[in-house]
This record gives sequence, C-alpha cells and structure tokens, in this order.
Amino acid sequence: MFTRVNSLADKDSLPPGSLVHVGEETTGPTRITVLEYDAQGVHALDEPDSGEIARLRDEPQVVWFRVEGVHQVEIIARLGEIFGLHPLVQEDIVNTQQRPKLEEYDNYLFLVLKDLSFDQEDQEVVARQVSLILGRGWVLSFSESGHDPFTAVVERINGGRGRIRHLGADYLAYALLDSVVDHYFGVLESLADASQEMESELDTAADQRVLRTLHQLKRQGLRLRKAVWPLREVTAWLERGEHELVSPTVRPYLRDVYDHTVQVIDATESLRDSLASLMDLYLSIVSNRMNQIMKVLTIIATLFIPLTFIAGVYGMNFKNMPELEWSWGYFAALGLMGVVTIGMLIYFWRKGWLLSKE
Amino acid sequence: MFTRVNSLADKDSLPPGSLVHVGEETTGPTRITVLEYDAQGVHALDEPDSGEIARLRDEPQVVWFRVEGVHQVEIIARLGEIFGLHPLVQEDIVNTQQRPKLEEYDNYLFLVLKDLSFDQEDQEVVARQVSLILGRGWVLSFSESGHDPFTAVVERINGGRGRIRHLGADYLAYALLDSVVDHYFGVLESLADASQEMESELDTAADQRVLRTLHQLKRQGLRLRKAVWPLREVTAWLERGEHELVSPTVRPYLRDVYDHTVQVIDATESLRDSLASLMDLYLSIVSNRMNQIMKVLTIIATLFIPLTFIAGVYGMNFKNMPELEWSWGYFAALGLMGVVTIGMLIYFWRKGWLLSKE
Amino acid sequence: MFTRVNSLADKDSLPPGSLVHVGEETTGPTRITVLEYDAQGVHALDEPDSGEIARLRDEPQVVWFRVEGVHQVEIIARLGEIFGLHPLVQEDIVNTQQRPKLEEYDNYLFLVLKDLSFDQEDQEVVARQVSLILGRGWVLSFSESGHDPFTAVVERINGGRGRIRHLGADYLAYALLDSVVDHYFGVLESLADASQEMESELDTAADQRVLRTLHQLKRQGLRLRKAVWPLREVTAWLERGEHELVSPTVRPYLRDVYDHTVQVIDATESLRDSLASLMDLYLSIVSNRMNQIMKVLTIIATLFIPLTFIAGVYGMNFKNMPELEWSWGYFAALGLMGVVTIGMLIYFWRKGWLLSKE
Amino acid sequence: MFTRVNSLADKDSLPPGSLVHVGEETTGPTRITVLEYDAQGVHALDEPDSGEIARLRDEPQVVWFRVEGVHQVEIIARLGEIFGLHPLVQEDIVNTQQRPKLEEYDNYLFLVLKDLSFDQEDQEVVARQVSLILGRGWVLSFSESGHDPFTAVVERINGGRGRIRHLGADYLAYALLDSVVDHYFGVLESLADASQEMESELDTAADQRVLRTLHQLKRQGLRLRKAVWPLREVTAWLERGEHELVSPTVRPYLRDVYDHTVQVIDATESLRDSLASLMDLYLSIVSNRMNQIMKVLTIIATLFIPLTFIAGVYGMNFKNMPELEWSWGYFAALGLMGVVTIGMLIYFWRKGWLLSKE
Amino acid sequence: MFTRVNSLADKDSLPPGSLVHVGEETTGPTRITVLEYDAQGVHALDEPDSGEIARLRDEPQVVWFRVEGVHQVEIIARLGEIFGLHPLVQEDIVNTQQRPKLEEYDNYLFLVLKDLSFDQEDQEVVARQVSLILGRGWVLSFSESGHDPFTAVVERINGGRGRIRHLGADYLAYALLDSVVDHYFGVLESLADASQEMESELDTAADQRVLRTLHQLKRQGLRLRKAVWPLREVTAWLERGEHELVSPTVRPYLRDVYDHTVQVIDATESLRDSLASLMDLYLSIVSNRMNQIMKVLTIIATLFIPLTFIAGVYGMNFKNMPELEWSWGYFAALGLMGVVTIGMLIYFWRKGWLLSKE
Repeated sequence: MFTRVNSLADKDSLPPGSLVHVGEETTGPTRITVLEYDAQGVHALDEPDSGEIARLRDEPQVVWFRVEGVHQVEIIARLGEIFGLHPLVQEDIVNTQQRPKLEEYDNYLFLVLKDLSFDQEDQEVVARQVSLILGRGWVLSFSESGHDPFTAVVERINGGRGRIRHLGADYLAYALLDSVVDHYFGVLESLADASQEMESELDTAADQRVLRTLHQLKRQGLRLRKAVWPLREVTAWLERGEHELVSPTVRPYLRDVYDHTVQVIDATESLRDSLASLMDLYLSIVSNRMNQIMKVLTIIATLFIPLTFIAGVYGMNFKNMPELEWSWGYFAALGLMGVVTIGMLIYFWRKGWLLSKE
Repeated sequence: MFTRVNSLADKDSLPPGSLVHVGEETTGPTRITVLEYDAQGVHALDEPDSGEIARLRDEPQVVWFRVEGVHQVEIIARLGEIFGLHPLVQEDIVNTQQRPKLEEYDNYLFLVLKDLSFDQEDQEVVARQVSLILGRGWVLSFSESGHDPFTAVVERINGGRGRIRHLGADYLAYALLDSVVDHYFGVLESLADASQEMESELDTAADQRVLRTLHQLKRQGLRLRKAVWPLREVTAWLERGEHELVSPTVRPYLRDVYDHTVQVIDATESLRDSLASLMDLYLSIVSNRMNQIMKVLTIIATLFIPLTFIAGVYGMNFKNMPELEWSWGYFAALGLMGVVTIGMLIYFWRKGWLLSKE
Repeated sequence: MFTRVNSLADKDSLPPGSLVHVGEETTGPTRITVLEYDAQGVHALDEPDSGEIARLRDEPQVVWFRVEGVHQVEIIARLGEIFGLHPLVQEDIVNTQQRPKLEEYDNYLFLVLKDLSFDQEDQEVVARQVSLILGRGWVLSFSESGHDPFTAVVERINGGRGRIRHLGADYLAYALLDSVVDHYFGVLESLADASQEMESELDTAADQRVLRTLHQLKRQGLRLRKAVWPLREVTAWLERGEHELVSPTVRPYLRDVYDHTVQVIDATESLRDSLASLMDLYLSIVSNRMNQIMKVLTIIATLFIPLTFIAGVYGMNFKNMPELEWSWGYFAALGLMGVVTIGMLIYFWRKGWLLSKE
Repeated sequence: MFTRVNSLADKDSLPPGSLVHVGEETTGPTRITVLEYDAQGVHALDEPDSGEIARLRDEPQVVWFRVEGVHQVEIIARLGEIFGLHPLVQEDIVNTQQRPKLEEYDNYLFLVLKDLSFDQEDQEVVARQVSLILGRGWVLSFSESGHDPFTAVVERINGGRGRIRHLGADYLAYALLDSVVDHYFGVLESLADASQEMESELDTAADQRVLRTLHQLKRQGLRLRKAVWPLREVTAWLERGEHELVSPTVRPYLRDVYDHTVQVIDATESLRDSLASLMDLYLSIVSNRMNQIMKVLTIIATLFIPLTFIAGVYGMNFKNMPELEWSWGYFAALGLMGVVTIGMLIYFWRKGWLLSKE
Repeated sequence: MFTRVNSLADKDSLPPGSLVHVGEETTGPTRITVLEYDAQGVHALDEPDSGEIARLRDEPQVVWFRVEGVHQVEIIARLGEIFGLHPLVQEDIVNTQQRPKLEEYDNYLFLVLKDLSFDQEDQEVVARQVSLILGRGWVLSFSESGHDPFTAVVERINGGRGRIRHLGADYLAYALLDSVVDHYFGVLESLADASQEMESELDTAADQRVLRTLHQLKRQGLRLRKAVWPLREVTAWLERGEHELVSPTVRPYLRDVYDHTVQVIDATESLRDSLASLMDLYLSIVSNRMNQIMKVLTIIATLFIPLTFIAGVYGMNFKNMPELEWSWGYFAALGLMGVVTIGMLIYFWRKGWLLSKE
C-alpha cells in the first residue's frame, strides 16, 4: 500500500493525497517522543501507543509530540488519523521537497520549514524538512530521520529556563520556529567565512579552483535564499496574528522571528552581492596576471629581435663588407647592440612598462 | 466555412470569434469519449452523437467529456452549441497558441493550460494545449490530436483509487489540472539532468557544442517559464474559491496545486540561474585554456630567442673575433646558452609561471 | 492660427491645448468617410459637411466617422466643436507622438493607439498613431494620412460577416482596437523571422554586419514594447467594464483583446531575451574564431623557433666545432630538427591543441 | 542670524527649520514681480513692499508673485511670514538640493520642481530648483537667481492667449508646472542628438574620447531621470484631484502633464537603453579592431618564420652539405622559399583569415 | 546570569528574550545622563539612581534619558524594569546587529537606527546602533559606548535654539532621529569624494590598487544602503502619524526626515551607479593600455622580422650566389632592408596603427 519514491517526477501518476515518501532513502526507525509540561512540571513519554497519544492530545497541559523520521508513511498515516489531519497535510509531511509554507485548517495550523546546516566537509548547505502542526494545546513536530533540530528547546523546557513553561502551545510552536531560524545565522556565518577566505586567497593564488569554489558558494547562497524568502511571508502572516490559535502574548515574539528572517534575507543578498563582486575581482586579477606574463615575455622578445638582426647583418657572406675587415668591428657591433638595448630599455621605462604593477 | 491557418499573423483579417484552427497541421480524426461516474460505478461511452451528449450533460452523476483533437472546428462548434459556450471560448479552444488563463462565465469556468513534455531526441520542451471547461456536474476537456495527458486520471476513475469517485466535477477538474502540473516536474528533471550533464562535460571538453547546448537549454527554460508563470495566477484565483462551481472541499487540493506551481516556478528560476552560472563558467574555462596555450607557447618562444641571438653573434663574419679562435670557444658558447636557459627557467619558476594551473 | 511643428521640443512655448500637428510632414488631404449601419443595412457617405455630421451623430444606428489624415488641424477643430471634444483631446489627436492611453470624459471615451507595421526594406517597425473616440451610438476614428488600418473592419461591416452588424458602437470600437492589436502579431513574426535568420547566419559569417543587425533588431523590439506595454493597462481598464458606454456583452471580447495584448508582451520579452542571447553567442563565436587564428599561427611560430636555433648554432664560425667536420653532421642536424619537430607535435597533440575545435 | 552653506553635509548641526541657503553661491539681488489678472485685464507690479503684498494676496483676481533668487534668506523669511508658510517650507525653498515633491498644507499646496536645461558647451544637464506655492487665488513662484523659466507663461497672460486669463490660480500653477515639464523635451532632444552623433562617430573613430563621452551622456541621463521619476508621483497625485484648491476644470490639464511626464520617463529609459547598447557596440568595435591589428601582424610574422629557418639551414657551416655545392642550389633555396610562402598564403586564404572583415 | 557573545550565530541555543550583548567587546562603563526641560528651563542630572529615574519619568516636563554604552546588560535590564519594556525590546537594545526598525507597543514606540560615520583612515563606513524609546513625556536613548551622536541636540536644548524647548517628547524623538539622518549626508559626501578622487586617478594610474579601492567603495555603498532602506519604511510610518504619541504638530517635521531619507537613498543609488560605471571605465582603460603595449611591441617585432630574413638569405653558404660577389652587394642588401622598413612603416601609418591613441 505504501510506496517510496525519490523525486517528485516519479510520483507523477499517483492520485493526489497519496502517502508516498519523497526524499533521500533512510532506514532508521521513526521515533516518537512526547513532552507534556506546564509551569508546575514536565512529563516525558517515549514511543506512546495510539491510545496514549489520543489521551495526551486532550490534556490541559501543553503537549509536544516529536516525530523523528518521516519515511515510515504508515506511522504518519496513523498520527494523521488520531489528530484528524487532512490527507494533503499528511502527504506534505512525508514529501520532503516542499517549499516553506503555512496552511490554515479549521482546527490547526500547518507549517513547513527548512532546517539548514552547513556541511564543512562538502562545503554545502544541507536542508532538512521540518513540519510543525499547532493545535489547541498541542504541537506536533516532524523532522527527518537522524536529525534533531530541537535539542535546545527540549533543554529549555526541562530546565525551566525562559518563559516557555509559563506560556501555551503557540509559544512552543514559536520557539521551534525560532530555533530553526537561529540555525540560519550559523549557516550564513559559515558561508561568509568561506567567502572571506576566498577573498584573501585571491591575493596569493587566483587559480581555477577559486573559480569553482566561488561558483559553489554562489549555489549555496541560492539554496539559502530559497529556504528563507518564503519564510518571510509565513512569519509575516503569523505576526499579523489573524488566527485564534495564536494569542496576542506571542505576537511580539513572532515579530522578532520576522525581524530575524528579514535580517537573514538581507545578509543573504549581501553575500550574493559580495560573491558576484569577488567573481569580478577574480576575473580581473586573472586577466591582469595573464597580461603581466604576456608583457614580460614580449618585452624580452622585443629586446632581442633587433640584436639578432644586427648579428644577422654581419653574418652575411658578401665579399665586400668593409666593417668585417676593421679590427675593432666586432667590438663596435657588440657596442651597437648594447646601445640599442639600453635605448629600448629607456623607452620602455619612460612609457612605464617596466615598473607598472598591473 | 471553416479555414485553417498556422500562425496568428495569418488570422489577421478575420472577424473576432471566427472558428479557425491555429497550430500545427494535424490529420487524425477528433475522438470524443465520455466517462460518467459516481461512487457506485463508472459508465464509458465512445463517440456519442449530439443527442446523447445533451442527455449526459444533465445526468446527476459526474460526466467527463474528453475531446482529443481540436483541428476539426466543426465538431468544436457543435459541442459549443450543445454546451452553450461563448464564441470566443470556442475560438480559444481551437487556437493552440493561447497563454494559460482562466475565464469565468455565467454557467461554466474556462481554463487553458499547457501540457509540457520533454522530447529527449531534440532536447526540446514540447507544449501542447489543453482546455478544460467546468460546468455544473460535467467537465469538458480538449487536448491536441495524438496526445492524451489524462490516462492516469482515467485509470484512477476506473480503478476507484483515491477520492475521485466520491467527489464532484470540481474535483475532476482539479485532478486534470493537477496531472498537467505534475508533468512539469518531469520536464524540470530532464532539463536539470541535461544541465548537470553539461556541467560535468565542462571539465573535459568545453567546446562550442557546449555553448550551443547551453543556449538551447536556456531557451527551453524560457519556454517552461512562459507556461508556468500565468498558471500561478490561475491556481491562486481558483484557490481563493470565489466561484460557486468550486466547492470548499476541493479548495485544499487547489492550494496544493498552487504550491506545486510555485515550486515549479522556483525550480525554473533556479535552473535559469544555474544555466547563467554555467555560461560564465564556460566562458572562463575557455578563456583560461586559451591563456594557458598562449603562455606555454610564448614561454618556449622566449626561451629560444636569446639563444638564437647568441648563435647569431658567433655567426658573424668579422675578421677579428677572438672567441672564435679559442679551441674551447664553441663549448663556452654552448655553456653560455645553457646558463641563460637555466637562468630564465629559474626566473619563470619563481614567478610561478611554469607551474600555475590556470 | 494653426502652426505645424515636427517635434515636441519645438512646441515648447505654446499654450497648452494649442492645436498643432506634431509628426512627419504630410501633404495629402484629410478624408472623412461615414459608415452608418445596423442589422438591416449599411449606408456610406463620403466627405459630409458639418450639418450632415451633426445629423448623423444623433441617428439611432451605429455611425462610424473615419478621418484619415490629422495634419489639417482646422478640420480636427471643426469636428471637435461638433462632437464637443475637450481641447486637450483635439491636441492629442493631432500630436502623433502620444503614448497609447485611455481617457474617460463625461460623454465619450478617448483612446490613443499605435498601429504598427514592419517595413521590410529598412527592417524597421513603423508606428502610426490611431485615435478612437467612442460616444453614445457613434465612433470617431482618426488615422495618419496615407494609412488605413481598418479596411478589414469596413469589409466585415459591408459584408455583414460576424456579429458586428448586430451589436452597438462599443463593439465597433472593440473591433477597431482588435484590428490594431492583430497587426502586432505580424510585426512580431517579422522580427522573429529576422532574428531566426541572424541565428542561422551566425554559423557561417559572424561579422560586424551581424552585430549591427542585432543592434537594429533590439531597437525594433524596444519600439514594439513601448507601443504594447501601455496598451495592457488600457485594455485591462476596458475589460473591467466600469464605464456605461461599454456594455456587458462586449466585455468578453475586450478580455480577448487584453489576452492578445499580454500574449504580444510575452512574445516581445521572449524576443528581447533571445536577441540578448544571440548577442552573447555572437561575441563568443567571434572571440573563439580569433583565438583559433592566434593559436594556429602561434603553433607554427613555436614549431620553427627551436629549429632556427639549431640552424643558428651550426652557423657559428668557431674554429673548433667538431660536428661541422663530421661527414654526416649535416644530416644529423637535419635529423635532430626532425626529431624536435615531431616531439613538439606529439606534445601539442597530447595537450589537445592541434585538434580541439574551438 | 542667516548663514549660508554649500552642501547639506555642512548643515549638519543646525536645528531643523533653520533658514540656510544651500546651493551655488550667487550674488545678484532677489527680484519680486507681481502679476494680477482676470479675464478683463492684467496689472503688473515690480518690487512691492510687504504691505502691498499682503493687500494683493487677498484680491479677488488671480495674483502671481514671482520671486527670482532664493539666496537672500531674509526676503524668503519675510514672505513666509506674510503668507503663513511653515518653517520647513521656507527651509525647502532656500535649500536647492531638494527632490521634486508635493506637500499638502492646510491653506496651500507646496511643489518643488527641477527646471532642466542642456548646457551645449559642457554637454551637461543643468538643474535649477523651482518652488511653487498654490494658495486660494494666488500663486507664489520661486526660481534660482539669473534663471527665469516662466517667460512664455508671462507672455501668454499679457497677450491673453489661450485659456489662462479665464481660469483660476490652479490653472496658473498648472501652466507653470507644464512649462517646466515642456523644457524636459528639449533636454531629451539634445541628449538624443548627442547620442546619435556618438553612434555615427563610432564608425569612423572609436577612440577613448568616445568612451568618455558615452560615460558622460549616461550620467546626464541619470540626472534627467532623477528629476523626472519623482515628478510622476507628484502629477499623479494632482491629477487625482483630491485637494479642494484644484478644481475639476483643471484636472484634464493635469492629466495631460502626467502623460507628458510618463512620456519623458519612457524616453529617458529608451535613451539609457540605447546608450548601454552603444557602449556594447563601442567595446565590440574596439576589440574587433585590435584583433584585426594583431591578426595582420601575426600573419606577417608567421609568413617569414619558415623562410628565415630555411635561410638558417643553408647558413650552417657543415663541411659536407651537398646542396651548397650545386650551382643552382641558391636559386632552388629561393624557389623553396617562394613555394612555402605561396602555400601558406593559400592556406590562410582558404581559412578566410586574409579577407574576413572583422 | 549575563553572558556576552560577539555574533548572532553564537547566541543560537539561548532562549528568546535572553539579555546578551552582541557586538564589539567594549569595556568603558555605561553612562546615564538625564535632561529635563520645558520652555522655562533645563535641568540636568548625571548617573541618577533607580528611584530618581522612576520619579523623573512621571514629571510633566520633557525628560530625556541618555544611556551611553549597552554592553552592561544588567543596567539595561534595570531600566527595562523601571520603564516596563518588553523583554524582546531589551534584547534588541543590547544586540547591536539589528536592522533599523520601528515597533509599536502599548505605552511606547521603539526605534532602532544606525548612526553612520566615515572612518577616513580605513576608508570605511562605521555603523553604530542607536535605540530610541518614545514614551508619554519622556525619551530613552541608547547609544554604543564611546560614541555620542546627540551633542548637537543637547546644545540646542541647553541654548534654547529652535523650537525644541517649546514642543514635546515627540519632537525630541524627531530631533534625535533627524540628527542621525543628517550624519548620512556627511558619509555620502565622503564616499562621493573618494569616488571623485578615484575617477581623476583613473587618468594617471589605473593599477590594481584602484580596482581594490573601487571594490571597497562599492562595499561601503552597500553598507550605507542597508542602513537607509529600512529607515524609509520607518519614517514613512511615522509620517502617517497613526500613533497617539506622535502629535500632528510634529508630522511636517517627520515628513521632512522622510524626504531626507529618500534623498539619501537616491544619492546612494546614484553613487552605486557611478561606481559601477567607474569600474567599467577602469576595465576598459586597463585593457586599452595593455592593447597599446602589445601593439607597439608587435609592430617593432614585425618590422625586424623581414629584415632578419634578408640578412639570413645572404648568410647562406651556397657556392654560387651571384649577389655576394658584387662589390656593392652589401650596400644593395642594406638598401633593400631600408626600403622594406619604410614600406612597412607607410603601410602601418596608413592603417592608422602608428598614431591612433587607444
């Protein structure tokens, strides 16, 4: 009943709402953890069964259902039934190639986010999909297998740090959204560092490897951009606070996330500008260096050409060549060569071709 | 009474609303198939006559009239009469050079779409026009001859898979729209593959064929873009669900199509960005390689010029040239040449011209 | 009282609303033709006097006043008086350098359009101004002298083809607007053909003439664009149908014109994109060819330089040069030259410099 | 009490609303002229005192106070008191580095415009600030010293030409605005002429002077653009006619000015496009010519290199060189050289390197 | 309890609303100064304790609390408590990497600005964050340690110059905002000067240092832009005057600030345009100069190549070479060389290669 495909194109002929995992193939099991808390205390539960989940959903405390791994579509389908999720929502959760978006349903809000990290080894931005569902008193979070972006929030709940234990499920949803956006700053910093490094390397070695790295960085910037731009609309919508599930208390916090998103967008655009500028600089340095080489080589060639001509003249075999008979002829010829060389050097130097730095 | 032209420019002097087929000339006959269904069962009918069509139109079940081939304008005109279609709608159906659009009439909605496929042989995006008319309880679909984009939907109806048999004509229209948009992902993937291939080919052979292929891919990206951008407005309008023919149940599905459309637009823009970037890379690789050639050749030339000069000096015929008389003069000259060569090589090596990779 | 100037800059110091013809100087007389029709019949009248015009204006049938030639400003002034046109409207009619626009007055709508044609000889887009005034039951059309863009509409009225005889003056105005927009497709096709031709010529002869032609085509595309973009707003306004002079029956037709306008805009943008792309291709082909020349020439030069050096060595006049005494020395030298040449050819061939196509 | 500074940066630490002249230092006196008129007649008054100004302000006729020179801030301050102008309005009048704008106050409208002219000598667009204040029945106009942009309007009032004497102060304000916008067409024409001239010069002499002139023209286009873009909003606002000081009669005229502004913007953008295109053409012509030089020179060099090699071979001093002994050896060598030369010429000619025009 | 981090990425795992200083590490103490004033007089107080601050906040006069230094987060927290500031506002004050923004709270408005100055030594735009809080009758201002952007305002209050002492806290907030925006003109002028200098240097020495400086200037322009663009929205919002804390009297002043902001944006865009244009000019000058060098050198080389060939011919050792025997043969050869040289010079001169300036 459940199939698995790797790209949207393969999913072509299936009916809409089919529960099919789209994304990298993963094998680890799906883990469900529940965190139930209020100002008084925290209660954690691992791998609850369907009955427990249904019971916890209706508790008065804030309940957070964390699902790690979305490739076992039958588990998602079971959760979808318990929480009454629309088939398309279930489909979007297991299809990890969504754009960030927010959808409003009668009893819940559905958010799709991209959690980004920077893989130092491959110098690549890695995007993993995170889905959040905010209901009345509960939050459902889905993340891809082997990736947990929410450890800091869990610690804050357990440690009772900040306001989180005193506020509702909407604040929890905000905290999760915020922690995802916070990761973008780290990615930006890594990209900015890599770009900085490229810039200093340009001085010493502007070879083709630099070009490819710039090309690669540009692509990473694009990836970041694709994750952040739609988020702007999402957070702007949330900040306007038009849904009853979002209380006025949480709105200033959502405005803060909105600000961060705009900040990330700004920084991303700056990064792109600066990479484009580095590309120009690279091309101009390479071209300058090539010109430099050509110039030095051509100067050498040009210096020797008249000398070789003079030597050629006195290598001619005419019977009657008076200079050849002079006893100091050879030295005169060498002298003439010296004079020509010095003359040309002076001419080049005056034109500024010998010393100019570019 | 019915004429046929191949481009809009030829249609110039005809009165508006003239039923003229604009598009590639096709000869196959126009096929009409009817599919009548509800949750209980499916009933199919081939090539119905006008009376049957009029009767089926008013059945309580969902009735889908599939028309393949739009070049026989008299058939379209007959259908137009039965269903009460505006002359301009009839004109748009037979003119296959429309932009995707949605038009609202009193009793029906009219949609023009572009079904895209990728012709692997010519490496070209092929666009075929699909027109949908959603009425009360029925859907009319028109596709170009020899092209049936809806087989998957037919199978789903016959097999009773998904929700399609339980929902109305608006869901059917959605399913048809969705199946067209789904094809875009396949086209995108083919283009992305071709672009990927170009990128890996750049390393080995950046010749002019690559340039032309990039040029060609860019044009295909443009074609895709032209089909998708207007679709965004169309699906956004549908999703807002302001027309009574579109029921609230179908709205989430239409939002899903809207999301897919935006995803395709995003991917198309990324593809264009990445092709522009590849073009830059190509130009820079070609220029680097040319510079490389020029450099190696110039170094060889420069190395030999001073040597040839020395040989020229001792080829002069002066009577009095002491070196010529020395018994080890020849070997001294060869030694001098060796020293000069080594000196220049060291100089070049220090400047980094001998080993630098670009 | 009536002056004539050729450019807006010359009109500088005149009071606003001055009736001054701005445009190419033309000498032919202004022709006025009247066409009065309804479903029953058509009645034509040439060169009516002021009284007749005033009488016809109030007839219950649809009356179309066609004015060809706008340089005789006194005639325009007389018509303006009869129909109660605002002085600025009269000014805009005789000033043929207007942008396309629509102006709403109490009793009439005023439209300025650009009728385009493509002059095959000069390869130029020629724009001629057309003004339409839609009143209650009548239409006034103005075109520049020696240019009649409306023959097809006249024929349709006379022949009774299409709906035109059954609908009102608003449909007539639509038909005139539509016939102008239809001409754009012809212009677009000519430009696309010229661009296509350029592309195929690039393969055989990418010389500077191609560059100039591309430059010229780009300018024509710009001209087309300037005529079409403002028309989009005009037709969008008309389609919204907020003016009582435009009846709901005509609205679908106006939407059709709007669609055509957007189609023309799309095609214009594609043309511009494709011309920019051709320009890039041209530059890259020229640069490739130049590089090709330089490479072949440099390879030849480089091959001979070491050989010349060897010849130079054995041309030295040292007393003691053992090789010179060997009887097979000469042939050994020639052999050495052959070995060097073959070695360099192998090196070049391995590097791929001898066969690479760019 | 009144200071004078030359740039906004120097004004840094002054309190807002400080009356400080910002602009070129000018020395001429400030001239005030009053023109009082209605349909019956015109009454002019030079250099009125404060009492007269206050009296004229309340006359039933239209009164136009023309102030030439804004550097004597005390005069502006006195006028500001009489007419009840806001301190910031007074500040904006004397600060000639404003952007064009419109400000709405309780009893008057305040307009800032840029009157442009083209200095043929420096090939520069010169911008001079004009401020207009439209009150109930009066207009105050301020222009920079030594610059009177309104002579045509004065003549029209005195001569009673056009509608000006029959309409109110709002029409006068319109007439002044219109006369400023009309000047833009002259500037545009001068720039277009200069650009045209550059284009024809490109054929004969594409030297660096052309580059600098293009650079300069681009900058002038930018200046024009900066003056016109904000004017679009200003005239659009006026045309919507939401202020009671602007009567419905004048609205069609304001729409006309709006149209002119949009026309100027269009032409400015076209100019910029065409200058960018000329820049491309210039670069391509220069590069073509350079390539041409390099090609001719390289061909000459390449032709002689094999010949020199042959000469070198027979200049070797081997004892045993059979060819040297042949009596026709020398002529055979010369013949070989001729054959090689002709062979290379044929090869070059076939490749199209000898005759190709670029 | 209070930590200090240097970049947003390090702040990643902290709960939102954590009071953490983000920015350059600074050590100086935080200084608080209070200025209480009305039309009658001014009262200043340094380093007030919490009780004094709470008392002053409720005084009927305008009270301005100036805080210099935001790195001692415990002081900010204490002030936050006294004035009832939202935790996120406190967080934004100490985090100096905010974008300019305006936030509306129930009892106060919160503004974040960037005060810019131009560091002449490093040729860098330095941005320091300024936060303003406008309450009922009081203003709180925060600036970074060692930086006081408000001295001019303090002087104006003390000296009783301008309107400041007669208007309320909203005018004070305006005055502070205005003084920050005024600094931008100074920065712009410095950047424009540097750009001007670059332009004149291009004529004499277009070396790689120029390239780097242009690159650097472009980056500074970007920095300016990032500070100004968001300010536009902020001032536009304030000018619309929708908040009760902003009285109608102050609105014209806020419109003035808005105008200045738009002026700065305009000038920034012009600067960027002009820098891009300079970059083009630089590249074209460098390329021209390189071409110039190559041309001169190649001409020299080409002149000598035929001469060397002639010398080579008469250096051949054929037994039978009639010219060698002629007594005037040598001089004839020299003459031939002269003729060839003159011929080539004439050819080059005719082609315009010897004198052309580029």
